[in-house]
Amino acid sequence: MQKSHQVVIVGGGFAGLQAAIGLRKAPVSVTLVDRRNFHLFQPLLYQVASGALSPGDIAAPLRSVLRRQKNVRVLLGTVTGFDVRRRLVILVDGELPYDTLVVAAGAENHYFGQDHWKQAAPALKTVEDAIEIRQRVFYAFERAEREPDLSRRKSLLRFVIVGAGPTGVELAGAISEIARDTLREDFRSIRPEESEILLLEGAGRVLPGFPVDLSEKAERALLRLGVRPRTSVRVTAIDGGGVEILTGGVSRRIETATVVWAAGVRASSLGAALAQATGAERDSGGRIHVSGDLTVPEHQEIFVLGDLAYRMQDGVPLPGVAPVAMQQGRFAARVIGRRLAGKPVSSFRYRDKGTLATIGRHAAVADFGFLRMSGLPAWLAWLFVHLLYLVGFRNRLSVLLQWGFQYFTYNRGARLITGSGPD
Amino acid sequence: MQKSHQVVIVGGGFAGLQAAIGLRKAPVSVTLVDRRNFHLFQPLLYQVASGALSPGDIAAPLRSVLRRQKNVRVLLGTVTGFDVRRRLVILVDGELPYDTLVVAAGAENHYFGQDHWKQAAPALKTVEDAIEIRQRVFYAFERAEREPDLSRRKSLLRFVIVGAGPTGVELAGAISEIARDTLREDFRSIRPEESEILLLEGAGRVLPGFPVDLSEKAERALLRLGVRPRTSVRVTAIDGGGVEILTGGVSRRIETATVVWAAGVRASSLGAALAQATGAERDSGGRIHVSGDLTVPEHQEIFVLGDLAYRMQDGVPLPGVAPVAMQQGRFAARVIGRRLAGKPVSSFRYRDKGTLATIGRHAAVADFGFLRMSGLPAWLAWLFVHLLYLVGFRNRLSVLLQWGFQYFTYNRGARLITGSGPD
Repeated sequence: MQKSHQVVIVGGGFAGLQAAIGLRKAPVSVTLVDRRNFHLFQPLLYQVASGALSPGDIAAPLRSVLRRQKNVRVLLGTVTGFDVRRRLVILVDGELPYDTLVVAAGAENHYFGQDHWKQAAPALKTVEDAIEIRQRVFYAFERAEREPDLSRRKSLLRFVIVGAGPTGVELAGAISEIARDTLREDFRSIRPEESEILLLEGAGRVLPGFPVDLSEKAERALLRLGVRPRTSVRVTAIDGGGVEILTGGVSRRIETATVVWAAGVRASSLGAALAQATGAERDSGGRIHVSGDLTVPEHQEIFVLGDLAYRMQDGVPLPGVAPVAMQQGRFAARVIGRRLAGKPVSSFRYRDKGTLATIGRHAAVADFGFLRMSGLPAWLAWLFVHLLYLVGFRNRLSVLLQWGFQYFTYNRGARLITGSGPD
Repeated sequence: MQKSHQVVIVGGGFAGLQAAIGLRKAPVSVTLVDRRNFHLFQPLLYQVASGALSPGDIAAPLRSVLRRQKNVRVLLGTVTGFDVRRRLVILVDGELPYDTLVVAAGAENHYFGQDHWKQAAPALKTVEDAIEIRQRVFYAFERAEREPDLSRRKSLLRFVIVGAGPTGVELAGAISEIARDTLREDFRSIRPEESEILLLEGAGRVLPGFPVDLSEKAERALLRLGVRPRTSVRVTAIDGGGVEILTGGVSRRIETATVVWAAGVRASSLGAALAQATGAERDSGGRIHVSGDLTVPEHQEIFVLGDLAYRMQDGVPLPGVAPVAMQQGRFAARVIGRRLAGKPVSSFRYRDKGTLATIGRHAAVADFGFLRMSGLPAWLAWLFVHLLYLVGFRNRLSVLLQWGFQYFTYNRGARLITGSGPD
């Protein structure tokens, strides 16, 4: 029996999963390796952090997604490096031979060299992060209810989100809804609706990746929700008691018990290992420069996809968003199939179908290129697109049910404070 | 303004929550203190451990349940003791004055003096316990998939549950369904359906608290599911690699990577603090002897309810189950109201409406006193009763949806391996 062509995919996120699915009819054996046993729908992770959904609602076990695809095997494992000469992926506890390698290891949180901020300002990347933030947010209200000192109570009811990209905006809107609607009647000593939610952004406007008019609409929607956006603000220090900022040349301190980091990610550290092994170039964010076919220069057998890949298109780098990753995954699968069949391949081209961000009930902004929307239509589009791309029919129904309940009752069912307390 | 009668309830489980709700029309101010911000429906916790449900499905935020009851305030706090002379509940960070005290702190896991077994054999009492067990069970299959050594692979696919009460039986049935149905097609190197599930019990039969004929039916149902019940077995040691047992005078070692403890609970350690403060007697399980009105002798102002209370009825002690706790909570609320109104009170009497345990799909046993059932009718009764008593309409619908999906697809959506790995 002839040994079939071995494809090893590192990472079961949007890019890796689409690559695996795209290879379902190819004459190859696929091994998908991930540190986790599930695919996570990260665009909705902020809803876990805000107690709206359970982790199980936005995660799909990789084995379950790929169970019927007999040319794929899923391995739970941690990749530490690559031996490109011997064509091996190095795991903590073994190695995997490949003929074609697909590296889609994604991105990790980036504190701009201030890694000690992590403790005081968790970011939102993993399920554990989301549970940690959920715990801190709801625990702050609990502590405020029992705090006799006015200024400490105020700092417990002040929430600071660093970074006003889509995640920061969505999380700020969600925390505001928690304070103004969900918890309104739940406490006896405090008034949750008097909470202060500050959204800090280094650029001159919120949602700096969106067109200017949508940024303005988003800012107005945030203000209506009681969120205070602060733009052109640089964070200079974060500790357990607050945040120090520099704005207009003036330094200021904000006392707060809860800071969430939504200011940036950088490429997975596997990018460094791959660059070292292949001699590939990286950008300042650690992403690997890839050729038009999404492979590493001089290594046609190594694809790099998603947040780990750096590729210019029409003069700007491709953004690190799910649609890019998914299209790249499907493209890589097609290239692998065509190469094995001896057919020519083209260059990857991202087809931008639009960008969406939600701010709160009935409020969102959408930029579909030919059409820009805000308010209720954008919000409905956001709901529809997110349900559509959520993996697993059961997840879709469950999320729809939870959203329906919250819409009519303003209640959030998954606001459990679990794990050990933050202090 | 006259200060109203202060009732402090310690614990938001079945007994404490029912006591709080029962006091909704009483002329009292109620403070409900719990370490957690949610009420947990413990009878379904094994379904979280087996990846069928998410923690959010079986938990209801206490504030949300009690939000409309204006004479209740909920506090997140840890009680450490009682000053019964000054009528104070002592918290880690403060104290609460009471006129009437209701202690419903429940039970905790009990390893019969072998607390070091806890690491190797987690028990199923909290949400964190359930997530830990879920992680260990699903991770064992993942490790087996990558294990080349046959005997180690066998030990990874061997699951030992210690204790064949309802929790142990339900968990054994669930793990068997995972192996035989859920994961059947998910792996490439191992055959999950060849897993071995051992259910160890010290007594002479499974479900020793049920009538003999139902124990026999349960045992047959377990065997059909591929679970191996081992009765009259004493566990003498548990470590990371296996379990040592004594059976018929012969000592044996079972190699296994996954042990779950379902063998026993004892009263919360708050029972000891209360006994010390009041001079109350305790039984061997740490439970406090209560009078007919469920108060501590010579302390008519202190009620002890649920798993923390010891009370004989018709020659046998009341069992530590949810229906007893709920009836006691409602009874205590009634007594408090009647005493304040100067009316006489009667003695508590448990009305046993039946006992239920489920073993797997279509298999359960039920003992309603006047009627004993097994098989499909008992299973339907089990589903109905558990949905009925689950707190929160949203939870009921969500659980119904998840169960519906699992019933038709055999899939379990919440099988996430989260947290740090066990090794």
